[in-house]
Amino acid sequence: MINKNSPLPIYAQLEEQIREQIESGILGPGDTLPSEREFCERHGISRMTVRQAINNLAKAGYLRREKGRGTFVSERKMEQQLQGLTSFTEDMKARGRKPSSKLLHFEIVPAVESIAQTLSIPKHDPVYHIKRIRMADGEPMALETTHIPANLVPGLTPEIATGSIYNYLEEHLSIAIDYSNQVIESVTASETESHYLDIPSGSPILLMQRDTFLKDGTPVETVKSAYRADRYKFVTVIRR
Amino acid sequence: MINKNSPLPIYAQLEEQIREQIESGILGPGDTLPSEREFCERHGISRMTVRQAINNLAKAGYLRREKGRGTFVSERKMEQQLQGLTSFTEDMKARGRKPSSKLLHFEIVPAVESIAQTLSIPKHDPVYHIKRIRMADGEPMALETTHIPANLVPGLTPEIATGSIYNYLEEHLSIAIDYSNQVIESVTASETESHYLDIPSGSPILLMQRDTFLKDGTPVETVKSAYRADRYKFVTVIRR
Repeated sequence: MINKNSPLPIYAQLEEQIREQIESGILGPGDTLPSEREFCERHGISRMTVRQAINNLAKAGYLRREKGRGTFVSERKMEQQLQGLTSFTEDMKARGRKPSSKLLHFEIVPAVESIAQTLSIPKHDPVYHIKRIRMADGEPMALETTHIPANLVPGLTPEIATGSIYNYLEEHLSIAIDYSNQVIESVTASETESHYLDIPSGSPILLMQRDTFLKDGTPVETVKSAYRADRYKFVTVIRR
Repeated sequence: MINKNSPLPIYAQLEEQIREQIESGILGPGDTLPSEREFCERHGISRMTVRQAINNLAKAGYLRREKGRGTFVSERKMEQQLQGLTSFTEDMKARGRKPSSKLLHFEIVPAVESIAQTLSIPKHDPVYHIKRIRMADGEPMALETTHIPANLVPGLTPEIATGSIYNYLEEHLSIAIDYSNQVIESVTASETESHYLDIPSGSPILLMQRDTFLKDGTPVETVKSAYRADRYKFVTVIRR
């Protein structure tokens, strides 16, 4: 399996081999990976080499380490449909998981140029600036930064923002959310993101920017969400 | 701007500050970043600190370095619509860019279990296994691994696979492609991916799996594409 004459480094060969076993289902979620020593002996390679392969796979989210217990194949990722606009709260409830939010920041601030443009309001108009960690069963899933025009959405409080803002808009203010434009990017976690999401710095992140509008085209929010890529994937159907 | 008493490390503060300037448009695509020395002097911080901030931003795709010339803000990413199934070739032509492919591998092989399942064919049925680098104006954009049932699509050749396979299906075989299921994930580049895509190992990658079907539900291909995250983002509209 390991070809010492290949131009591909040995750790990369081992990395691809383990990854293929995970992708093909030979290794399933929660399975224990053989120990570093077993890999060394099986392939006649050094511990350093094995460690590099495993490090890369852990960083890419295929494996997770637990101190003193071993290395495990990661749980399957949650699939988020890109059809039908749902709030994080609704989404988690539909999966039978308990949603919660940790409010990091809640403030009314004057809109800077870029936010004012996105929200189609005059520069320096008041906006809510809300930063939340979104959690499922107490585990951090996404770091979300939301801006909402304060004149359009009166009465938003930190208490409301720890739950579903969509629920407040629709049930209490009778504001009808119509659609979102979404942009999805792949980035590596910054120091701040890795801290709040409890993942190593440099881990992959699914970055989603969501701009949400009312029927008449009025922007009602702009949100940047950094989703843990070891927990999330996005799925969609496209017609030819 | 830099707060030496903050619990956030100084390099992380500088990183976030530069990133905000890029995201807000203060720094535009192609702009030259001030030199490391200028950052040191402006903020009274060490060269190591500046270098770490810039390294992280380069790795995340916000900046690119050119030897002997300096550090530049990266070009805008290409937006790929998640509405309307298009081939890479069609997509690049629509942008006025010249599509090309470098064929790395072309072989008819017996389908392994996971591929056979995805394509709804018996295990060990013949499938084309095709690996291509997709390029725009000669620059690598994506590494694509395609599996196609050989009994469904006769006569596919390496020559055809360097162009648009969709075109061959529709124009020459009159096979009507109907829709795709797509899964989008964020990962970091493996050794192989970074080699073929000409990006540093560990760079962010948008991984897309596309399973494509005919009107009657027959699977016609399964494709894994690793898109450079510094060149690509996906956009979509979602209705409430």
